[in-house]
Amino acid sequence: MGPGIGGQKQVIGADVGGTKIAASLVDMRGSVLSSVRRPTDLGGAEATLDSIADTVKELMAINGLDASGIDAIGFGIPGLVDAERGIGIASVNLGWRNVAVRSGLESRLGIRCAIDNDVRAGALGEARFGAARGLGNWVYLNIGTGISAVIWLEGKVFTGVRGLAGEIGHAVLVPDGPRCKCGGRGCFEAVAAGPAIAERALEKIRRGRASLLAPPGSGPLPDTLTAEAVFGYAALGDSVAVETLKEVGTLTAYALEYLALAYDPDLIVIGGSVVAGSPLLFEVIQNELRELRDTSWVFGRSNSKDLVMLSALGNNAGVLGAAALVAPQP
Amino acid sequence: MGPGIGGQKQVIGADVGGTKIAASLVDMRGSVLSSVRRPTDLGGAEATLDSIADTVKELMAINGLDASGIDAIGFGIPGLVDAERGIGIASVNLGWRNVAVRSGLESRLGIRCAIDNDVRAGALGEARFGAARGLGNWVYLNIGTGISAVIWLEGKVFTGVRGLAGEIGHAVLVPDGPRCKCGGRGCFEAVAAGPAIAERALEKIRRGRASLLAPPGSGPLPDTLTAEAVFGYAALGDSVAVETLKEVGTLTAYALEYLALAYDPDLIVIGGSVVAGSPLLFEVIQNELRELRDTSWVFGRSNSKDLVMLSALGNNAGVLGAAALVAPQP
Repeated sequence: MGPGIGGQKQVIGADVGGTKIAASLVDMRGSVLSSVRRPTDLGGAEATLDSIADTVKELMAINGLDASGIDAIGFGIPGLVDAERGIGIASVNLGWRNVAVRSGLESRLGIRCAIDNDVRAGALGEARFGAARGLGNWVYLNIGTGISAVIWLEGKVFTGVRGLAGEIGHAVLVPDGPRCKCGGRGCFEAVAAGPAIAERALEKIRRGRASLLAPPGSGPLPDTLTAEAVFGYAALGDSVAVETLKEVGTLTAYALEYLALAYDPDLIVIGGSVVAGSPLLFEVIQNELRELRDTSWVFGRSNSKDLVMLSALGNNAGVLGAAALVAPQP
Repeated sequence: MGPGIGGQKQVIGADVGGTKIAASLVDMRGSVLSSVRRPTDLGGAEATLDSIADTVKELMAINGLDASGIDAIGFGIPGLVDAERGIGIASVNLGWRNVAVRSGLESRLGIRCAIDNDVRAGALGEARFGAARGLGNWVYLNIGTGISAVIWLEGKVFTGVRGLAGEIGHAVLVPDGPRCKCGGRGCFEAVAAGPAIAERALEKIRRGRASLLAPPGSGPLPDTLTAEAVFGYAALGDSVAVETLKEVGTLTAYALEYLALAYDPDLIVIGGSVVAGSPLLFEVIQNELRELRDTSWVFGRSNSKDLVMLSALGNNAGVLGAAALVAPQP
């Protein structure tokens, strides 16, 4: 088969996670034509690269494509990535340190590959296919296991002097708050990322609050309570879960207000699994932002009601972001 | 007299405040050669413009200069200023609304004039003559009666989409904290600007704390306690004053950390009267930033010890900033 139906160009985007790899065939308008998901093999860098390449090969086989039918493949990778040199510098999730990811994949697939950090890829997907199409100044705020922002100024990613611009996940949001992975206390990430939401709910239960998250008689407190469980029980009206999301949403709104006043962007897009996973959490954030705008005339000038939006790409954000790494500009 | 001694170019910078006007003759290296201070006439816009022009005329007379000896005059004006059109849009301190400041001054003085907001002028002074010479990406954070930041990216002021970039004085720093002039609660400005510092100290005294700021038997609590008084008594070891500055300095450090992680600048210069007025306050801020860097490896990457500095222009920041509005680039 040639370069897509009717000569329409197609690329492949692959979202590499610590548990699974998703690869999709994507057209130039950001439509996902076909997808494959496989578990990530974490038995060393070579095995991981094999499992990534195999996922892509399976996608190509299903669609009757060979190497000549695909221009390029983009990969979104967790952790620190040197996109230019094609190196996975460090990834806790994949157990990687200085892995030559791009050349490893190109030699396995015989197709030009591009890699980047998955959050930057997500932002690129939003710019190319999603809510930020055509915008020059906007911010992509990823809230998942961690929190970081990708800053767009005049249509380009702004990285700051040391590549740290947007690392607001590690600014203190709650003085003397929970310990953060970075070593700090009360960082935005330690208060509002997925693990922090689960921990906040657990803490309420440890202090004796009744909750469907840990019903009495159900044994020891779960060590593995997830943000998803909190979202689910909040939707059922569990008071601990609801209260947790109200607190976290309010604090998240403060961090968003600071971001909006620092950069005065056209739009802030929230990506990642956390806010997208809970309509209640997003509603709390929007309500608090509205309250802040209605009381402060300075912040009130900062926006329309649509200053903060959820990613428009939903479950496909990962693969579309990866595809955007190699999709030619329209 | 011609255009300065030995042909060296000179300009005039005037810093217009709500109580006084300072005008200085400045050379191209940022040396202040001669200065005049006069009270501001607040009896209407025309009277105010007269008093500004008279201050400049006095400076010129003292230095034996006529209109042919000065290329241009720069004016730093409080409040909202449309620099391009030369309009003072609104100033609480001057009681101005849509005043044609530039044309009013040019017709009075017969010399080309430029105006801008005093904080932006202060930032320009720092870029031209002060700590930020030669830097592309840096932030000027003004802490005085209000708080706002001027953002420099690639050597130019970045204003954001609506001109609000850097208005972080109105981001919530302390949820449900003190009421802010903007209508919000607990804004950075409502917690850390001059009036907020005075109010925090007063609040401690109202709650019964003994302090040299309001000794027992000295009558009713002062309504007019100033940040300067807090700085002065803190230097003498007054516990209320010291505690006030420790609290405010710690909170200011959090706002600086967020700013540093948002923009990842080469340098943050603190201008305005507040931090410059209190070595203790600056020390608390620096100590807390060091603590934050030592605990968080992410923020730890953000800097050297010199990430945050005080303005290098001291008492001359206002007039040098105004002069920078019209000083040709070297």
